Amino acid sequence: MTSPAAMEYLFDEKILNNALKIDPKITIKDNFHLRPLARNDFEHGFLAALSQLTEVGDVSRERFDEIFDKMKTNGCYYVTVIEDLDTNRIAGSATLFTEYKFIHGGGLRARIEDVVVDNDYRGQNLGVALVQTLKSLSQVLHCYKLTLDCNDQMISWYRKYFDFQIEEGRSNFMTIRFSSSSSSP
Amino acid sequence: MTSPAAMEYLFDEKILNNALKIDPKITIKDNFHLRPLARNDFEHGFLAALSQLTEVGDVSRERFDEIFDKMKTNGCYYVTVIEDLDTNRIAGSATLFTEYKFIHGGGLRARIEDVVVDNDYRGQNLGVALVQTLKSLSQVLHCYKLTLDCNDQMISWYRKYFDFQIEEGRSNFMTIRFSSSSSSP
Repeated sequence: MTSPAAMEYLFDEKILNNALKIDPKITIKDNFHLRPLARNDFEHGFLAALSQLTEVGDVSRERFDEIFDKMKTNGCYYVTVIEDLDTNRIAGSATLFTEYKFIHGGGLRARIEDVVVDNDYRGQNLGVALVQTLKSLSQVLHCYKLTLDCNDQMISWYRKYFDFQIEEGRSNFMTIRFSSSSSSP
Repeated sequence: MTSPAAMEYLFDEKILNNALKIDPKITIKDNFHLRPLARNDFEHGFLAALSQLTEVGDVSRERFDEIFDKMKTNGCYYVTVIEDLDTNRIAGSATLFTEYKFIHGGGLRARIEDVVVDNDYRGQNLGVALVQTLKSLSQVLHCYKLTLDCNDQMISWYRKYFDFQIEEGRSNFMTIRFSSSSSSP
């Protein structure tokens, strides 16, 4: 039996449910549950899903809990997952992350990060559901803009399903990598 | 006389001093002081400097304090300013902002945001000093990468002075704006 502590969520599920109400077009099959990251997702393939996006490296249970706690205390991390209820496996994940600003009347900016759908769950609308939910979430949180950086091959997808724009003259993304970390993201 | 509360810094100046030690090439004239944002910078032109970058809008003293407090509690905001010691005016500002990750061994990613030098202080190396300091700061904080998004005309500057790279096939920056906010950033 799962203990209540293990089912602890990273953020309040009510906020996510408010976001889901904005766009009734978000449809995934009934055996999928879109919800905040839970502490026990460590045991249900959350890092395995992320490893299909980039190098996860050596993240122990203790390290996972440490980051989970930091994100939860910080309060600006909305790591959202889709669980396959038949197997309790994490089928996909995406993160909304907010930033306080002095500009724009002291507004809040949102970013989408680390979007991944497990290879075994492709073609079931899960990526669209995740990003559409985070877009709605950023509106629920009253953000003035939502941004992301992506690979060339993802541009048309973000444009088609969510109206993300490459803005003329100001859409350059630049990087410095400090160690021998992997290529992306 | 300035009260101690008014001179309260957003983050520990020691961290910034450690960053400054990394690169002895950072040189600005003696009448400039590079330091963390202080609470009383509201009275010394901090928002006026930011308004040369984008729309600041209506940010009252109370709203400023509220954002300052949120950023300070959050602990991931390194808003760094250069003060003109002759006038106590803010000559420039740039922000380093860090994000917890489950990927890369549970690493920390850094971002540079809201870089601005007041028009009256151009050509005095202040922009280079600010960004170089934040680059060093992201190393002091053991970040695995440092990123930014910028206008076309800034690419060569970030490449030349700091070795920022446009990475082939994965340097696209996309945006959704939700309200009638101004054009940039």
